[in-house]
Amino acid sequence: MKEKIDLLGAGLIGSLLAIYLRKRGLDVSIYEKRKDWRKMDSSGEGRSINMALSFRGWKALEKAGIREKVLPYTQPMYGRRIHDEHGNTFFQPYGKDNQAIYSISRNSFNKLLLDEAEAQGARLHFEHKVEHVQVGNREVRFSLPDGSAKTVRSEVLIGSDGAYSSLRNAFQSQLRFNFKQQYISHGYKELSIPPAPNGDFAMDPNALHIWPRGKFMLIALPNLDKSFTCTLFLPFEGYKVSFENIHDDQDVDQVFKTHFNDAHALMPNLLKDFRRNPTAALINTECYPWTENNALLIGDAAHAMVPFYGQGMNCGFEDCYILDGLVEKYGTFSWDLVFEKFQKGRKPDTDAICQLAMDNFVEMSDNVADPKFLIRKKIEARLHELFPKEWVPLYSMVTFSDMKYSEAYAIGKIQEKVMDQVMRDPLITQNWDRLDYEDILHQVEVAGAV
Amino acid sequence: MKEKIDLLGAGLIGSLLAIYLRKRGLDVSIYEKRKDWRKMDSSGEGRSINMALSFRGWKALEKAGIREKVLPYTQPMYGRRIHDEHGNTFFQPYGKDNQAIYSISRNSFNKLLLDEAEAQGARLHFEHKVEHVQVGNREVRFSLPDGSAKTVRSEVLIGSDGAYSSLRNAFQSQLRFNFKQQYISHGYKELSIPPAPNGDFAMDPNALHIWPRGKFMLIALPNLDKSFTCTLFLPFEGYKVSFENIHDDQDVDQVFKTHFNDAHALMPNLLKDFRRNPTAALINTECYPWTENNALLIGDAAHAMVPFYGQGMNCGFEDCYILDGLVEKYGTFSWDLVFEKFQKGRKPDTDAICQLAMDNFVEMSDNVADPKFLIRKKIEARLHELFPKEWVPLYSMVTFSDMKYSEAYAIGKIQEKVMDQVMRDPLITQNWDRLDYEDILHQVEVAGAV
Ligand SMILES: Cc1cc2nc3c(=O)[nH]c(=O)nc-3n(C[C@H](O)[C@H](O)[C@H](O)COP(=O)(O)OP(=O)(O)OC[C@H]3O[C@@H](n4cnc5c(N)ncnc54)[C@H](O)[C@@H]3O)c2cc1C
Ligand SMILES: Cc1cc2nc3c(=O)[nH]c(=O)nc-3n(C[C@H](O)[C@H](O)[C@H](O)COP(=O)(O)OP(=O)(O)OC[C@H]3O[C@@H](n4cnc5c(N)ncnc54)[C@H](O)[C@@H]3O)c2cc1C
Repeated sequence: MKEKIDLLGAGLIGSLLAIYLRKRGLDVSIYEKRKDWRKMDSSGEGRSINMALSFRGWKALEKAGIREKVLPYTQPMYGRRIHDEHGNTFFQPYGKDNQAIYSISRNSFNKLLLDEAEAQGARLHFEHKVEHVQVGNREVRFSLPDGSAKTVRSEVLIGSDGAYSSLRNAFQSQLRFNFKQQYISHGYKELSIPPAPNGDFAMDPNALHIWPRGKFMLIALPNLDKSFTCTLFLPFEGYKVSFENIHDDQDVDQVFKTHFNDAHALMPNLLKDFRRNPTAALINTECYPWTENNALLIGDAAHAMVPFYGQGMNCGFEDCYILDGLVEKYGTFSWDLVFEKFQKGRKPDTDAICQLAMDNFVEMSDNVADPKFLIRKKIEARLHELFPKEWVPLYSMVTFSDMKYSEAYAIGKIQEKVMDQVMRDPLITQNWDRLDYEDILHQVEVAGAV
Repeated sequence: MKEKIDLLGAGLIGSLLAIYLRKRGLDVSIYEKRKDWRKMDSSGEGRSINMALSFRGWKALEKAGIREKVLPYTQPMYGRRIHDEHGNTFFQPYGKDNQAIYSISRNSFNKLLLDEAEAQGARLHFEHKVEHVQVGNREVRFSLPDGSAKTVRSEVLIGSDGAYSSLRNAFQSQLRFNFKQQYISHGYKELSIPPAPNGDFAMDPNALHIWPRGKFMLIALPNLDKSFTCTLFLPFEGYKVSFENIHDDQDVDQVFKTHFNDAHALMPNLLKDFRRNPTAALINTECYPWTENNALLIGDAAHAMVPFYGQGMNCGFEDCYILDGLVEKYGTFSWDLVFEKFQKGRKPDTDAICQLAMDNFVEMSDNVADPKFLIRKKIEARLHELFPKEWVPLYSMVTFSDMKYSEAYAIGKIQEKVMDQVMRDPLITQNWDRLDYEDILHQVEVAGAV
């Protein structure tokens, strides 16, 4: 009886979860408010937005059996390429050897996952917008494009409907639901760098480009078509360079010429992009419980984070991996049990990554340009080289491993304390490669981080 | 044109605010979902719930010109009367001299305020339940008892509709609204102690009675009819003594006989009360902004706190006082300006009292029974006696003054640090009245708290 399951939202997480659940033989329906965009021609006006896929994401794709299908759509980025104000660039590797994060187009990725879910037998219901969920009996009311309504009563219901989840809204008025939504001071706008006149990438294609400017920044990720998608992060207001102070084309040009001059030269569509693309806000949400009466929140619906660690999707994919592991272990006799185990085990980890993502804005937009920070990174890289198992930098624990986020967070805090101490040496710039590295490791071990 | 103003919710805060706004000559309407309960006979089944009114509340009532009308409804409580497990009681004064907090029946108080608002010319619309607010044009849709709907477009809209505010809900889906709702592990249930057989109070009528038991507690406040209203605070689950573990009359009796034996003897209606009265949850909410497009949140709608500092209503009344001061200063030409000044100035203070209320549960349910805590309080009382202006205990700053809550909070933190240090003396029990009090004050002064 409990073999029928309904998912709300066919975004990245809902689509991957549908694949997993179909592989377990369940009867899966997905309800999505958008049109079936797979059939729409996206070549023309459609914006190309991309995102970084890393270890946790790959691991989840692998278990679902679709790693190989995804790989051709991705472009590896082995490090950050920092652009300073004078147009100089320098490269900071993300990890060791071939460790990379992978740029992938959100649109093609979502299409691919959804095609796969459909091929596996999931039923897709597009243009079904959830208007209301009755948590008590899992009755979902949808509105259809013709203005009519349709009601479905679910046996098991999963909300993968993103940061503004309708299922979470329904939970919110239930007894004792804890919830927080928090917007940060910054917003963002997508822009683009087309291929160079010779048809090739206009910049290094194997890096995530950053123009760190303290209170604001620009980033760019490569696309398969040899263009880059850029994201401009600015404060909404309260600073000289902010969205409220950009009124017209001239202001846009002015900001880019002053602060991103090398990028500006590569952005023929800057003014059009800036006018056309929306200015979007950035939200962090945390809530608990995630489950109630055979209904569950997953992905951004359960924990939407700011994008500064590139982990939102990866974390949502890991959600699917973990949930599938619990279904494997406990079967589908008691979804309440599975959902309960899931939320208890997972919540501390999503709290940790939400916090890390929040903190990382300062690192990306400010620290990466600071010479002292670079030395700090060099020391950490050296530690990692000398003690590959015992000292793994926080970024690597998060991005290149599947260690629990909460554990990475705790170890990161200890490393941070020790490194703060190391960096107090006023001659650190000269001394950094003659430090007693054994001793630094020892301090971390004493504090319990190994 | 901006002289018409609509309030949602005729609770304590909405009613007092209506009085203030009428006194400024504005055209005030209040919409309230309940029936006009003033005409209902509340003698029979109606529960009598009471609350503590303190300095900030009185100050706001005074400015509204109704202090004298309220006074006869109140019963002063000069301190806490602690009941230990053996039925011994001891008294802890709240302040100095005649400082007291005042018990008042929520129901009669709300009636009185609403009568006054009506007498001043506010239009009351009962049985108008807000179903939806369109923030863009301040269009409010009400449902009426006959099932029909009514729509009102407001010029200026104020949400005084409590912790589950419908206006706040509408704000929540607006751009960049920060919101947090948090339930604590404990719930509560109201009970009662009727007058003694001789018709008099069954216990000391000039105290707030507390039975502190660590993870749970019982409190009782006196009523004018010589009864007491008791509130039992228990964890919902996870402890031996918790709501989930009380299944029947026998369990109730058992818990009361074991932990509140002296109270039990005075509670002939215990079992009936326990069965009849709901178990309620305790919520803390914080949000920002409070205003958007000529609409404002106030009172619990803007900041619902847990009841452990007895400040929720007092804080809401102070909101009214401050808002009225801004209307006085800036007039009603620009409500946006007035609302903006209000939220900017007030938000740090409501954050501070929300936090203090949260922290105070431990003080009420646990510390008050600890001999060391009593010595600590004695030292603080002595400091206050010696330096009446320079050392005011946190409880007094919050309860008996109108110092900004955020300032009281900051000073409280400094005092706490200094007192933690003082209490480290292993012989403090013997030495407490021979301390160098000048020096203790000096430490606080150095830290900037005076
Ligand atoms: C600027 C930016 C950059 C990012 N970069 C990265 C990155 O580099 N790496 C990374 O790992 N993560 C990144 N993220 C995070 C990532 O985008 C999200 O974590 C991820 O998209 C979450 O997937 P989801 O399926 O849970 O939600 P969504 O992707 O939001 O999908 C939700 C789906 O539900 C549908 N839906 C919503 N409401 C309803 C309704 N009422 N009825 C029916 N259907 C509904 C939506 O149409 C949508 O299809 C980034 C996020 C942002 C904002
Ligand atoms: C157990 C407990 C003890 C407390 N003790 C104290 C104390 O000792 N001292 C103290 O200062 N504070 C105390 N408080 C806090 C105090 O009760 C609140 O701060 C205060 O009641 C807030 O007043 P309000 O008018 O903002 O909201 P409410 O009192 O909640 O009033 C809101 C009004 O809006 C109406 N309403 C709600 N929704 C709608 C809708 N959709 N349409 C139309 N109308 C609507 C409601 O019917 C109600 O009349 C206590 C709280 C609790 C829970």
